[in-house]
Amino acid sequence: MDHFTYYNPTKVEFGVGKESLIGQHLAEARVKKVLLCYGSDRIKRDGLFDVVTKSLAEKNVQFVLCGGIVSNPVISKVREAISLARLHQVDAILSVGGGSVLDSAKAIAAGVPYTGDVWDLFIGKASIDSALPVFDILTLAATGSEMNSGAVITNEDTKEKFAIQSPLTFPKVSIVNPALMKTVSRDYLVYSAADIIAHAIEGYFTAVDQPRFHSRLVEAIINTVIENTEILLANPDNYAARAEFAWASTQALNGLIYSGTAGYSYPNHMIEHALSALFNVPHGAGLSVVIPAWMKWYQDRNPLQFERFAQNIFGLKTAEQGIAALENWFNKIGTPTRLAQLGITEAHLPATIDIVLTNAKWFGLADIYTKDVATTILKSAL
Amino acid sequence: MDHFTYYNPTKVEFGVGKESLIGQHLAEARVKKVLLCYGSDRIKRDGLFDVVTKSLAEKNVQFVLCGGIVSNPVISKVREAISLARLHQVDAILSVGGGSVLDSAKAIAAGVPYTGDVWDLFIGKASIDSALPVFDILTLAATGSEMNSGAVITNEDTKEKFAIQSPLTFPKVSIVNPALMKTVSRDYLVYSAADIIAHAIEGYFTAVDQPRFHSRLVEAIINTVIENTEILLANPDNYAARAEFAWASTQALNGLIYSGTAGYSYPNHMIEHALSALFNVPHGAGLSVVIPAWMKWYQDRNPLQFERFAQNIFGLKTAEQGIAALENWFNKIGTPTRLAQLGITEAHLPATIDIVLTNAKWFGLADIYTKDVATTILKSAL
Repeated sequence: MDHFTYYNPTKVEFGVGKESLIGQHLAEARVKKVLLCYGSDRIKRDGLFDVVTKSLAEKNVQFVLCGGIVSNPVISKVREAISLARLHQVDAILSVGGGSVLDSAKAIAAGVPYTGDVWDLFIGKASIDSALPVFDILTLAATGSEMNSGAVITNEDTKEKFAIQSPLTFPKVSIVNPALMKTVSRDYLVYSAADIIAHAIEGYFTAVDQPRFHSRLVEAIINTVIENTEILLANPDNYAARAEFAWASTQALNGLIYSGTAGYSYPNHMIEHALSALFNVPHGAGLSVVIPAWMKWYQDRNPLQFERFAQNIFGLKTAEQGIAALENWFNKIGTPTRLAQLGITEAHLPATIDIVLTNAKWFGLADIYTKDVATTILKSAL
Repeated sequence: MDHFTYYNPTKVEFGVGKESLIGQHLAEARVKKVLLCYGSDRIKRDGLFDVVTKSLAEKNVQFVLCGGIVSNPVISKVREAISLARLHQVDAILSVGGGSVLDSAKAIAAGVPYTGDVWDLFIGKASIDSALPVFDILTLAATGSEMNSGAVITNEDTKEKFAIQSPLTFPKVSIVNPALMKTVSRDYLVYSAADIIAHAIEGYFTAVDQPRFHSRLVEAIINTVIENTEILLANPDNYAARAEFAWASTQALNGLIYSGTAGYSYPNHMIEHALSALFNVPHGAGLSVVIPAWMKWYQDRNPLQFERFAQNIFGLKTAEQGIAALENWFNKIGTPTRLAQLGITEAHLPATIDIVLTNAKWFGLADIYTKDVATTILKSAL
């Protein structure tokens, strides 16, 4: 096990009704005015907006609204929100939504005190030296953003989908109420399952050093996601299954399974980011297409771990059986496994591969993911 | 899954040579003078003391020595250290040692700013409103104290072994270098294995709500401890095994497997605390005696989970088989499973049971652990 520093100061408030604590947490942090970020007006229709604003009012926390944040969130919206935050001199960012809203909130929080253009922070032109505190109420369990310091944003002009990460962008308090997630659509539930599994297996297969303890933790996460996705597809109101699904999602990307691995890469995310940046497909849907194709290409680099996966996730024996079982499971739950299902054809591949190669540079993976390799993987996913 | 708040702000510095970072971490926290707590002079003989004091000197951090902290640490020593800390006006406590030293450090840290007697904080006569910051360099992986806010101390006068817990007593920085642990004796290695397994199974069997995700995480911890204990008994210099053992130990008691369980009890610790308070036996050795006896008595209250344990830890089928396999494994690694091995006979039982019953009140378990039950469990461990 390699050396590491583990630090995760986010306080997670988990459970039914916890969203009504938001005013109290903001007041304890001496926050007077927040930029309240959200996506669609769904939060107004389902009553969450009223609960949140009532909680803020009770603690005399003012808010400025910033709605309309979309899936695969974009840097133009982040820029707009930064201007709004400066204009109203907010002293914290509050995200009410899923990973897209929360990632935007982190980018806004880092962008407000930075004097240049916020995209500089994504391309390494400047580092994050200061950030407003971020608080969030999570409405979709998938990205793990609620307990990590990362944020992924798309630049619509350059078609780049890049990330920031800083100890300053951990949420101060994340409120995770699984009951709020029962209205998540069937499609987004299965895309989320694919996203969590992707977070778990990127390191499982690519880690420089993969302690068996970590493999066991990853298997605990994946088996929990598979089991509870099936329960939720049959009964979306099963709170216990929502809760296990959500907490497994948080653990998949909060540093626990990363610590001590000597680092690992995110090739499935790297490839998928090209799909969602170019074609605006849901991130999880893109991942469930990329993963089986990538696994088929990658398996010979880590054959024992692929056998372990087959055995400990599906009770099967060979690497090929494990990959086929995961692909079949994705098909069974109804998340795509073919580019065609996303409307992407062979004619789209050259442009896609260009972006994959650009991403590979940023991910530090250009040596491995050459044009030939990217073509092989994506063609096998057609 | 029940509602919960997860918060663990401890920064863990894990890996070879990390102890030399202690000066830097103290300086970053603006600490000028520490009370340097330790146990025996072993840390002076093996060079650790020199590394630590050199690191402090480089950052101009002064220190006051407080050695001689013993296993099953005692409140008289904590009181003495509090006086010393006040006299020298230290502004942090630095623990260099295992769980006993670290638990003492936490008690000292909470006791310094408290005007009454520190034992008040253990018996609920006063609450912890303030504490000096605690830093530590861990030399034994067992208690999990490096990433939690608890501390267990024995009152020699009353024979009570009680705990404090407060958000203020989380270590700020815990340095865990598994290489420092290769000189741990064979006996203390196996006692530590029993202690970690105890932390993992208390909740596994007694949780009000035991999500399957949590069961899987617990099984990951136990299987890791079993596997790596065996590797280390064969080869104490195996760094990878030390590291997995240490990190599993940390995860067993940092809140991860507790969150969402609606609470659970620590009956094995409750019973064992009577043994170590009365007879000063090593905590882990006491636990490996208590656990099989307790499991035999408790199994009918949670039969499915005991079957799960048999299957997922030992590949066996029935509850009885799982309990026997654990007892056999304790015997195999050489940690005691009978009171007689600790020099405790039937003649000692009445006094022991008295303390167990006192503990049961403090643990909130007096309804379950009556005199009859305590007698049954302890007699079966003779």
